[in-house]
Amino acid sequence: MTNPVFIPGPTNIPERIRKACDMPTLDHRSTAFKEILPPALAGVKRILKTETGEAVIFPGSGTGGWEAAISNCLSPGDKVLASDFGMFSRKWIDMCNRHGLDLQVVTAPWGQGLPVDDFATILAADTTHEIKAVLATHNETATGVRSDIAALRAAMDAAGHPALLLVDGVSSIASMDFRMDEWGVDVAVTGSQKGFMLPAGLAIVGISQKAISAMETAKLPRFYFDFRDMLAMNPSAGYPYTPSVGLLNGLKTAIDMLEAEGLENVFARHAYIAEGVRAAVRAWHLPICAASPDLYSDTVTAIVVPNGIDGNALVAHAETRYDTSFGAGLGDVAGKVFRIGHLGVLTEVQALAGIATAEMAMADMGIGVTPGAGTAAAQTYFCKNG
Amino acid sequence: MTNPVFIPGPTNIPERIRKACDMPTLDHRSTAFKEILPPALAGVKRILKTETGEAVIFPGSGTGGWEAAISNCLSPGDKVLASDFGMFSRKWIDMCNRHGLDLQVVTAPWGQGLPVDDFATILAADTTHEIKAVLATHNETATGVRSDIAALRAAMDAAGHPALLLVDGVSSIASMDFRMDEWGVDVAVTGSQKGFMLPAGLAIVGISQKAISAMETAKLPRFYFDFRDMLAMNPSAGYPYTPSVGLLNGLKTAIDMLEAEGLENVFARHAYIAEGVRAAVRAWHLPICAASPDLYSDTVTAIVVPNGIDGNALVAHAETRYDTSFGAGLGDVAGKVFRIGHLGVLTEVQALAGIATAEMAMADMGIGVTPGAGTAAAQTYFCKNG
Amino acid sequence: MTNPVFIPGPTNIPERIRKACDMPTLDHRSTAFKEILPPALAGVKRILKTETGEAVIFPGSGTGGWEAAISNCLSPGDKVLASDFGMFSRKWIDMCNRHGLDLQVVTAPWGQGLPVDDFATILAADTTHEIKAVLATHNETATGVRSDIAALRAAMDAAGHPALLLVDGVSSIASMDFRMDEWGVDVAVTGSQKGFMLPAGLAIVGISQKAISAMETAKLPRFYFDFRDMLAMNPSAGYPYTPSVGLLNGLKTAIDMLEAEGLENVFARHAYIAEGVRAAVRAWHLPICAASPDLYSDTVTAIVVPNGIDGNALVAHAETRYDTSFGAGLGDVAGKVFRIGHLGVLTEVQALAGIATAEMAMADMGIGVTPGAGTAAAQTYFCKNG
Amino acid sequence: MTNPVFIPGPTNIPERIRKACDMPTLDHRSTAFKEILPPALAGVKRILKTETGEAVIFPGSGTGGWEAAISNCLSPGDKVLASDFGMFSRKWIDMCNRHGLDLQVVTAPWGQGLPVDDFATILAADTTHEIKAVLATHNETATGVRSDIAALRAAMDAAGHPALLLVDGVSSIASMDFRMDEWGVDVAVTGSQKGFMLPAGLAIVGISQKAISAMETAKLPRFYFDFRDMLAMNPSAGYPYTPSVGLLNGLKTAIDMLEAEGLENVFARHAYIAEGVRAAVRAWHLPICAASPDLYSDTVTAIVVPNGIDGNALVAHAETRYDTSFGAGLGDVAGKVFRIGHLGVLTEVQALAGIATAEMAMADMGIGVTPGAGTAAAQTYFCKNG
Repeated sequence: MTNPVFIPGPTNIPERIRKACDMPTLDHRSTAFKEILPPALAGVKRILKTETGEAVIFPGSGTGGWEAAISNCLSPGDKVLASDFGMFSRKWIDMCNRHGLDLQVVTAPWGQGLPVDDFATILAADTTHEIKAVLATHNETATGVRSDIAALRAAMDAAGHPALLLVDGVSSIASMDFRMDEWGVDVAVTGSQKGFMLPAGLAIVGISQKAISAMETAKLPRFYFDFRDMLAMNPSAGYPYTPSVGLLNGLKTAIDMLEAEGLENVFARHAYIAEGVRAAVRAWHLPICAASPDLYSDTVTAIVVPNGIDGNALVAHAETRYDTSFGAGLGDVAGKVFRIGHLGVLTEVQALAGIATAEMAMADMGIGVTPGAGTAAAQTYFCKNG
Repeated sequence: MTNPVFIPGPTNIPERIRKACDMPTLDHRSTAFKEILPPALAGVKRILKTETGEAVIFPGSGTGGWEAAISNCLSPGDKVLASDFGMFSRKWIDMCNRHGLDLQVVTAPWGQGLPVDDFATILAADTTHEIKAVLATHNETATGVRSDIAALRAAMDAAGHPALLLVDGVSSIASMDFRMDEWGVDVAVTGSQKGFMLPAGLAIVGISQKAISAMETAKLPRFYFDFRDMLAMNPSAGYPYTPSVGLLNGLKTAIDMLEAEGLENVFARHAYIAEGVRAAVRAWHLPICAASPDLYSDTVTAIVVPNGIDGNALVAHAETRYDTSFGAGLGDVAGKVFRIGHLGVLTEVQALAGIATAEMAMADMGIGVTPGAGTAAAQTYFCKNG
Repeated sequence: MTNPVFIPGPTNIPERIRKACDMPTLDHRSTAFKEILPPALAGVKRILKTETGEAVIFPGSGTGGWEAAISNCLSPGDKVLASDFGMFSRKWIDMCNRHGLDLQVVTAPWGQGLPVDDFATILAADTTHEIKAVLATHNETATGVRSDIAALRAAMDAAGHPALLLVDGVSSIASMDFRMDEWGVDVAVTGSQKGFMLPAGLAIVGISQKAISAMETAKLPRFYFDFRDMLAMNPSAGYPYTPSVGLLNGLKTAIDMLEAEGLENVFARHAYIAEGVRAAVRAWHLPICAASPDLYSDTVTAIVVPNGIDGNALVAHAETRYDTSFGAGLGDVAGKVFRIGHLGVLTEVQALAGIATAEMAMADMGIGVTPGAGTAAAQTYFCKNG
Repeated sequence: MTNPVFIPGPTNIPERIRKACDMPTLDHRSTAFKEILPPALAGVKRILKTETGEAVIFPGSGTGGWEAAISNCLSPGDKVLASDFGMFSRKWIDMCNRHGLDLQVVTAPWGQGLPVDDFATILAADTTHEIKAVLATHNETATGVRSDIAALRAAMDAAGHPALLLVDGVSSIASMDFRMDEWGVDVAVTGSQKGFMLPAGLAIVGISQKAISAMETAKLPRFYFDFRDMLAMNPSAGYPYTPSVGLLNGLKTAIDMLEAEGLENVFARHAYIAEGVRAAVRAWHLPICAASPDLYSDTVTAIVVPNGIDGNALVAHAETRYDTSFGAGLGDVAGKVFRIGHLGVLTEVQALAGIATAEMAMADMGIGVTPGAGTAAAQTYFCKNG
C-alpha cells in the first residue's frame, strides 16, 4: 500500500480526508452532529449543482444509491428505458429486473456512449408515456466512456416526455462537469469513494422535486433506502438509523477541499491528468476503448491490449511485481482491456509513476511498447499544459 | 469528544480498531483483500457460534441487516409474527409493513421482554403453518431488556413449527451470550458499532442453511442486500460492489481482540460493568426500566427518572454542561427514562466517570440523589468483583 | 491505554493535536515549513508573555532545555544560586555540577517552595555580584509545589542584583500563570508534553535580550543546544539540523487551541480541576504534600499516604488492577506520596474517574478512606463551580 | 504532501510506522514501557551488528548523537583527527571546535571519500598516540559519497593506534552495510529519520566497551547526552528524563519491518533503487558528484547540473511547480548539484515518479535532457533486476 492506486475508485484518499474520517465516537443524537450532517448535505447540493432539489446520504455504496433511485420512484411493473453499453449500465438493468420492472433495453457496443438517438426515437414514439423512467450511466467505468446527459435531456424535452431521468454519476460527479438542475436530472447517484476521495461507504443521492412527488406514489417496497424518512428527519440533523459519522465528516471536508480549489478547476485538473494519460496511450500505439474523443472519460481510460495478451494477467502482474493496482477488464471486455483510473487527488507526478509502471508491466508481458515512450509523451504534455 | 460516550452504541472505539479502520486505499480486487474479507467472515461465524451457517456483511447499518433478513427470506403477503415491546422491535414491524408482509403483532409493555408464552400459544395454534417467520429482538436497546431466545426456540420446537426465526442481535451480539446454531436462529443481525466496537457502517448477518433455502424462493425484491450475490462471490473474496475495506479490516481486528480475550470473558466483563452500573442505580433509588432482573441487559440500562423530570432534558444537560453523552428515552419512554450504555470497550474506570457525571447532572436538574452514592456503590462492587 | 493518565505529564493528548503531529514527511527545507516554525515560535512567545524576548525550540526534553539555559549563559566556574526542594530542582543542580559550575545551594524541606527569603539575603550580601545566575523551579512536579517567581524577581531587584534568572517552567507554563517579561525571567524552560499537551520531544525555551547578550560571552561548550545557530537561522524558517516537524506542527495547533480558549481561561480551568481534586483529598483526610494553600500547584497534587503504606505500591496496584497511571513518589518522598496529575486537557469527568479509581486502589490497599467520599466532594465542587 | 519526497531524509514514513508512532499517552514509568524500550535497544544493536556494545537513544537528532559521541569520550584539548570532505563532516568538525578539542583536519575535495591513506600516514606517525579519536562520516549526505570504514579500521590496526573510532552513520545505517563490531567502531551515530524510516526526533547511538571505558574519564561536560545515566537506567526500562515513547515504539516497529525483510535484503533493495536512479543520471549525460563508482552512495545521489544552471533553483522549481521535494546543494556544492534521496521505503514505482519529475523540472529550466530518457533507462534497469 505504499504506491498510489490507479483504479477508477476507490481513489487515493488525501491525508486531510483520512483524518476527518478517523474520528472518536461522536453521539449522532448530540448537537455536535448538527455541525456535520447539514453542511454535508448542503455541500452535496452545490457539487451536484442543484438548488431546487434535495440531497440524501445513505450508509452504503453507489449500488445502494441506484436501488434508492428506483425503489423510491417506481412501482412494480413500471416501464423503464435503459441501455446496456458497459458493466455498470448492465448491472443497473439487472437490479431493475430483480425489482419487477418492465425493462426496454437498447444494447450498444461497449466503447460507445449512451444511444441518445435511439432513446430519442423511442421516447418520441411513446406518446402514451408508458415509460416512467429513463436510466442513464453518465460515465461507464468499465469502458471509460462519458455520455451526453444534456443531449438526452434535450431529446426528452423534444419528445415532451415526462419520464423521470435517473442518472448514475458514480464515477463522474465531483470529477467531471455535472449539472443536475440544468440537465433536469431527477435522481443523481454517486458514492463516496470516487470524486469525493473518501473511503467507500456512502451512497450519495440528489433528488429533484419531481422525484419527490413520484416518491409519494411509488409502490416498490423500501425502508432502508426510503427517501421519506431521510427527508423528514434530516432537516433537524436527525437520521432514521445510525449514520456513518466519520464518513459524513470526511464528506464535509472533501466538499471544503473541492470548493477551495474551485469545482471548475477540479474538472480542469481531471482533464489535464486524463489527457496526459491519453498522450501516453497514443505513444504506446494502443487503442483507447472509448470509440471517439468526445466519449473520452476524464476519470478512467480503458486501454485495449494487443491480441494474444490477457489484460487481466497484465493487471495481476503489475500487482504482484510492482505492488501497483490498475483496473482489470470487466464483463464483455474482460481480458481485452486494462484500465488506468485517474480521478480524485492523483497528481501528475503520481500519474507518471502509473504510466511508467504500466510500461514496465507491458514490457514484462511482451507487449512491444518502447519503455519510456508513453512517459515521455505524458511528461511533454504536463510540462506544456500545467 | 474528550470524554467517553455512554450511549448504547456507537461505542467507544479502541485505539487499535481505529487504526485498523483507517487505511490507505486498498484495491478490493487485489489479492490483499483475500487477507481481509475471508477471515472477517470466518470470525463473524465464530462470534455468532454458527458452524453450519454462513455470514455476510453489507455496507450499511443494522437496519439494513433487518431488511436483508426479511427480503431474502420472505415473499409479499407472507405472515410474520412479531412483538412490539420497544422502539427497535417496533421499527422492524414498520419495515415489514412497508414490505407488504402480513404482520401479527403481540404488544407487550415496554420494559417487558419478548412475550414468549404468547408466541408459544400462537405458534401452537398455527397448525397450517401460515406464519413464515418469527421476529425477535434479542436486546431491546430502548428499554435495556434482554429476551430469552432459547426459550423462544423451545416454544417453536414444542409446537413443531417450521417458521424461520429472525433475530435482531444488534445490541447483544459480541457483548452477551448468543448461540446461533444452538438456538436455531435462521438470520442473526447485528451492526459494526456495538459489540464489535467499530464505527457504524456495516450490517453483519448470519444465515442458516434453512434461510439459504428460503432465499431461493423468496420473492421480495432485493439487489443491494441480496444474499445470493454475496454467497456466490465471497468465497473467492469477491464482492458484488465496492466494499468498506477499512471497516472490514477493523472487523477482523475486533474479532482478534474478542477472541484473544475469550468470548466468555468478554461476556463476563460486560456483566461486571453492567452490574456496577446497576449497583449505582439502586443506590440512587431509581427504578430500572427492565421489569425484572432476568430481563436486565448487560449492554444498556434504562433508568426511570422521577415524575416531573424530563429524562431527555437531563441527557441534553449532561451533554451541554459536561460534554458527556448518555442515551435519551425513545418512543413510548421518551422523557421517562435516560439510558447508560455500557458495552464495548468501556472500562470500570470510564464507567465510574459516567456514573459520577450522571449524578452531577441529576443534582443539577434537582433530582434528589446523594452525590457520590451511586459511585460509591459501583466502586464497592468493582473492588470486590474485579 | 483506554483510560486517561493521571500523571503530571506527559498529559493526555487531544485528538486534534495527535492528528496535527501525525504528518507525512514534509521537507523542512521547503516553503511549507515557513507555515509551521515561525508561527510556532511566535505563539510560544505569546504563551510565555514575552514581547522583548525570543523563543527557540530544540528536539529534546525539558532537561535539554535546562542544559540549553545554562550552557548558553554561563562559563565554567561561574557561581550559581539554586535550591534543592524537590526532585527536579535537585536534578538541575546535578546538571550544573556536571558542567563545572560553582553551586551555592539552599536546601529547603520538600513540600516547601523556593526559599525566596534566603535567596534575598544571599543576593543582597553578594555585593560583588559573584552570582551569575539564579535557578528557580516554578512548579516542583515531585511535590506539587508552586513557587513565587514574582517575589524572587522583587528580591533580585531589591538587591539590585544583575544575575540572570533562569526558570524551570516545565510543569507550569501553559497551565498556570507565567509572565516572562513582567517577572524578568531571562531563560524560561518548558517541554512539549505538559501544558502544551503534545507528546514528549521538544525543549521549548524563552530567552530574554539579557540572556542573548550573555550568550555572546558564555564559554560552556555547546553545539546541539546552541542558541546562536537557532537565532541566526530561525527567522528564515531555517534550522541547524533536522527539526521534529510533526511536533512543531502540533505545537502550533496547541497554541491555536490555548488561544482560542483564552490563556486566562486555561489557567482558570486548571485551577477548577485542581480544586476538585484537592476537595477529594480533603475528604479522604490525607495531607497534601505542599505545605500550605499558597503553594498548591494547579497541575499536580502530591498526596501523603498513611504511615505503613507504600505510595509506590499503591501506584503500581492502580496500574495493574485498574490500568490507570498515577504519579509515584520520587526522591526524598518516594513511597511517602502518590501524585495525581491534573494538567492539560483533563476534564472534570475524567478527573472524577481518576479520583474514584484512586479511592478503589486505596481501599484495595487497606487505606481507610470511605469509598465515594472524595468523589462526592469533587462532584459537589464541580457542580457548584463549573 | 501527496507526492513522496526525494530528499535524503527525513524519508517517507511507512503507514505502519506512522501508526506505531501515533500513540495515546503511555506512562513511561509503567510496566508497558518495558515492552517498548528494551526491545528497541536490543533491535538497534542487531541493526548495528554489535554484540559486545550497547545502544542508547536520546530524544534529539543525529547532531545530538555526534555531541553524545564526543562529549562522552573526550576531554577538553584532546586531539581529534577528522576530514572535511562534505557538509556534514565539516559540521562535526565545527562542533568539535566549539567543544575545545584540538582538531587535525585533512581536507579532501567534495565528491571524494574519507582520505583513508592520509589518515593512515598521520596515524602511523602519531607514535605517542596524541590522537584520541578519529572521526569518520560513513555516508556524506551532501555529496552522496560512501567512505570505506573497514579500510579505515585496517589502517588504524596497521598503525597499532588506540584512538577511538567515532562514525557518523546517519544516512547509511539500516540502509547500507554497516558492521560495528567487525569494523571496530567505538561510537556509531544515526538518527530516526533515515534508514529507520521514522520522523526525526531520535539520536540513536551504538557504544563499544572501549567507548564505555573512555566515558569514565572523559571530562567534557554533559548531562542531557550523558551515556552514564542511560546505561545505568535503561536495563530496567528506566530513562533519565521523559522519553519519546511514540518514536521508540515506532523504532521497535521499524526494526521488526527491517528484520522481517532481512537486513541484507534491505541493503540489496537500496542498491537496486540507487542503481536505477544512477541509470537515469547516466542517460541524462550529467555527472554524478561522487568521483567514482566505488564511492557511490545507495541512499542519495548528488547530480552535477550544467554550468549556468542553478541547482537550487531547480529544486525550488520542482517544489513550486510539481509539489515535489529534491535535495538542494549544500555548502561548497550549493547551486552546483541537486540531490535525489532514495532511502527508506521508496519503491521503484515512486523512484520513477521522482526521475520523471526531475526530467520535467530540468526541461522547464532549460537543461537539455531528453524527456523520458532517464525514466526509460531506470525502467529498463528495474525490469531486468527486480
